[in-house]
Amino acid sequence: MCRIDVDRSLIEPRIAALVARRSGVPAGEGVPDACRAMMDEVVAQGVSSSEGGKRLRALLALCAYDAFGGDPARRDAMVDMACAIEVFQTAALVHDDIIDESDLRRGRPSAHRALEDWTGDRAIGRGLGLMLGDLLATACVAIANDAAGRLPNSPALVDAFLTMQREVEIGQVLDLAVERASLLDPQALAEASLGVFRWKTASYTTIAPLQLAMLASGVDPERARGVAMSIGGPLGLAFQLEDDLIDVIGSSRTSGKPVGGDIREGKRTVLLADAIGMADPDERGELVAMFEAGARSEEDVRRAIGLFRSTGAVDRSKSRIEALWASTRAAIGDAGLDAGAEGRLTAMCARFVPDVAGR
Amino acid sequence: MCRIDVDRSLIEPRIAALVARRSGVPAGEGVPDACRAMMDEVVAQGVSSSEGGKRLRALLALCAYDAFGGDPARRDAMVDMACAIEVFQTAALVHDDIIDESDLRRGRPSAHRALEDWTGDRAIGRGLGLMLGDLLATACVAIANDAAGRLPNSPALVDAFLTMQREVEIGQVLDLAVERASLLDPQALAEASLGVFRWKTASYTTIAPLQLAMLASGVDPERARGVAMSIGGPLGLAFQLEDDLIDVIGSSRTSGKPVGGDIREGKRTVLLADAIGMADPDERGELVAMFEAGARSEEDVRRAIGLFRSTGAVDRSKSRIEALWASTRAAIGDAGLDAGAEGRLTAMCARFVPDVAGR
Repeated sequence: MCRIDVDRSLIEPRIAALVARRSGVPAGEGVPDACRAMMDEVVAQGVSSSEGGKRLRALLALCAYDAFGGDPARRDAMVDMACAIEVFQTAALVHDDIIDESDLRRGRPSAHRALEDWTGDRAIGRGLGLMLGDLLATACVAIANDAAGRLPNSPALVDAFLTMQREVEIGQVLDLAVERASLLDPQALAEASLGVFRWKTASYTTIAPLQLAMLASGVDPERARGVAMSIGGPLGLAFQLEDDLIDVIGSSRTSGKPVGGDIREGKRTVLLADAIGMADPDERGELVAMFEAGARSEEDVRRAIGLFRSTGAVDRSKSRIEALWASTRAAIGDAGLDAGAEGRLTAMCARFVPDVAGR
Repeated sequence: MCRIDVDRSLIEPRIAALVARRSGVPAGEGVPDACRAMMDEVVAQGVSSSEGGKRLRALLALCAYDAFGGDPARRDAMVDMACAIEVFQTAALVHDDIIDESDLRRGRPSAHRALEDWTGDRAIGRGLGLMLGDLLATACVAIANDAAGRLPNSPALVDAFLTMQREVEIGQVLDLAVERASLLDPQALAEASLGVFRWKTASYTTIAPLQLAMLASGVDPERARGVAMSIGGPLGLAFQLEDDLIDVIGSSRTSGKPVGGDIREGKRTVLLADAIGMADPDERGELVAMFEAGARSEEDVRRAIGLFRSTGAVDRSKSRIEALWASTRAAIGDAGLDAGAEGRLTAMCARFVPDVAGR
């Protein structure tokens, strides 16, 4: 049984409790009086930064646990494992916001900005933000390690969790490399962008939730990895492509949201690579100049969106997403689930690509 | 048997091999061509940043493993666990250098500065440095987890390793808090500084190496923690106090090394707190004004060193170190070791406080 709303109501308070317990000072220990307020503030910021996610990754993990026949008596441990994935995401976002110098996250001040405001000192606030990311990264492994001890395949679970963490960190490095890739070879840029999605997005968004859930259900580690890659690999890529597409054309589900943020920041995306690749020479020169410049005006953003559409880059992304979603559906079909479980897992996976899967 | 030189020659190449294997792209996987050079550079920097430490922590862990009767047949796994502690330190130093904006580490460019130079881009270089710290932090847990699986007390070993990591991260937060503590209550400042040493230094320098070694030797987890705290707690504090003292008066072993770096940076240390506490009102006002200013001249540094001596703060630190070293020796005596093992462990611990223990 997949129980999205019930699961969401289980996950949310559990994340807050786990973050407070695992990133703060251990019970029974004290810190010097002069330091207590700052330590408390950092932990409070950790709890606050953990709020407000869509929890798709945790929900996928729990849905897959049920679909692959996970023991209902041990589902509590799987809830903790699912929470550990979400805490890992928060840790990664806290550091990501420092790297990108982002002021906002989920509509609120990013963690390091909030801590800068609290201390009134930019350097100390940023330092505290960096340490909060470290504390959350350590906390998520501790949560996962504890959950693994209460589930089958314990060593493989810890291994898979650490592999996920490493893959995302590699993905962040690769993502910085893509930002420096040449715009003059759009084919290579599109391949590099798509290649990086497997590391920076699919790893923890779809592959790890599926793999951890299967391991926790007692599935053999090699099979768990194989099935998770075949279902989660294309799904994670489709999710990132749809996310990039929504940034340009908006979503049927979030109409009215401002678009063009990636263009404004000059991000190297698959859409940009496709547009440069399919543009005529004049338009190509225009796009390259625009994205090699230090900043882009609102007029530039509108023009780029126009070119992303007129060159066929938007349609190409939609076709890519449809093909990837078809792969995911086929892989779910091959996973040997009964019809009910297959339907529920398909519906859960469809939530990662609502604009394509909903049609 | 404690075999310092042999152990050092085992540890050094093993760290390089483990860092390369655990922080790079996993065997059998590839990354996009456009990203490969940057990924390779980050891993190479990780290996390079791991070089050049004194390895006291790893040597203590191996010496304690032998002293507490660790199985010689499993010593390879203990070597890896000892390396994991060193890799953790490197991870922490990479982030610490970003927080402190340090240009140098162990006489070479700090990791984020080296990556800034390599990319020619300050923001991307700093971002890569931050991710390298994350990659090394994940790698050290993976190394520890793998080693734990080949040793007794596996779950307790992983737990202790993650606790060490969390304690140091808490210590870094507390350390930033001490930097903002008032100079007008030197008693509270001295207590806060000493209190933070337990988290930021003793945790991974002395307590964890002893605790992990005892667990790996099959000692009951509760006893391992208790004995590690009683030997390693005071030793870690003494080590940090001696480190701070050497920064002010130099060491008999490193005469000629420039002194006063902490004073130049305006660091809140136990020495400073003691000096302010024991100074007469005029000198107190002078020290407070000097350390509340944005920067200190070479003349200020000389004057501060003079006051640290004349007020008795230097002697007070020496007495503190002697008392802590006496506690450590007593705790080693209570650990129930045979005379040979006790002597070898004492000699190893003495390396953490050479200026006091050598007298």
